[in-house]
Amino acid sequence: MDEVLANNYPKFLDLYEKVFGRRPSEDEYMGGKIYDLPGANDLRKSLHNPGWFADLPVIDNAPKIVAKLYEKHEVFIVSSATEFKHSMFDKMEWLEQHFPFISHKRIVFCGDKSIAHGDYLIDDKPKNLSAFSGEGLLFTAPDNVNLQTDFPRFDNWLQLDDFFFGD
Amino acid sequence: MDEVLANNYPKFLDLYEKVFGRRPSEDEYMGGKIYDLPGANDLRKSLHNPGWFADLPVIDNAPKIVAKLYEKHEVFIVSSATEFKHSMFDKMEWLEQHFPFISHKRIVFCGDKSIAHGDYLIDDKPKNLSAFSGEGLLFTAPDNVNLQTDFPRFDNWLQLDDFFFGD
Repeated sequence: MDEVLANNYPKFLDLYEKVFGRRPSEDEYMGGKIYDLPGANDLRKSLHNPGWFADLPVIDNAPKIVAKLYEKHEVFIVSSATEFKHSMFDKMEWLEQHFPFISHKRIVFCGDKSIAHGDYLIDDKPKNLSAFSGEGLLFTAPDNVNLQTDFPRFDNWLQLDDFFFGD
Repeated sequence: MDEVLANNYPKFLDLYEKVFGRRPSEDEYMGGKIYDLPGANDLRKSLHNPGWFADLPVIDNAPKIVAKLYEKHEVFIVSSATEFKHSMFDKMEWLEQHFPFISHKRIVFCGDKSIAHGDYLIDDKPKNLSAFSGEGLLFTAPDNVNLQTDFPRFDNWLQLDDFFFGD
């Protein structure tokens, strides 16, 4: 979900600004998470807060293209979530709001995505793609921009639309 | 989790008694859920209540035998849960209390277990076992006692202990 369907950066940028009195530039944080910035590791604890995942902005075009995929294929949302006990309620509400066509039967919350099998995995973490038995598709996120991998890279959902539905 | 690790019947029996003024006998409910009894279907809604899954009793010997399995194998808890938005927080807390050795990385909440792959699935629902690519092991529960299936049946965790660790 994070950085593929939901954008978890703006809230961390706001939080960083609140704590450190200034907003980090893209140059500073590209290649990592906001809480990877010097002295900012404690910010990660916010992921445990009830409500943190409830109001994240949606990644551009995700609802439209996921809806197209969902109509033609057996799509599951597989989200790393069990580390954060409150996140799952929030993520259910968030999906209901932004992806109302997704059945609860197609939602999976886990801690290790290697348990899930399928034909394709769209993910921002090469580690998840490496552990996947099907074909891994890397979705570009601020923390993976500099990574060189063998997985095909997609910078946005329009490119994925083209991959799955282009001629 | 339900009827394999956690016993969801006593709370429903209490609720039935509270609503209908009497406790159903085993003869009445064996072969189904408590909310399958005539006129009791509304009781199922309780599964949506925050806290419902937080204080269920543990199935006999489950913690001990699961701990043995966990030590030697890659054990995942795969639980149908996304239908009930509050259940996942409760189930995390419940697992922490009764199965504290289980990492959040080995916990999966889903709505359709066919997404999970592995060598064995221990489950009380033949439907879940049928959709599983590995070997299905049927765990006896009140609602499946009368079902004839091709899956090996285990009435308790001691029998599973014997299956996995017996000589």
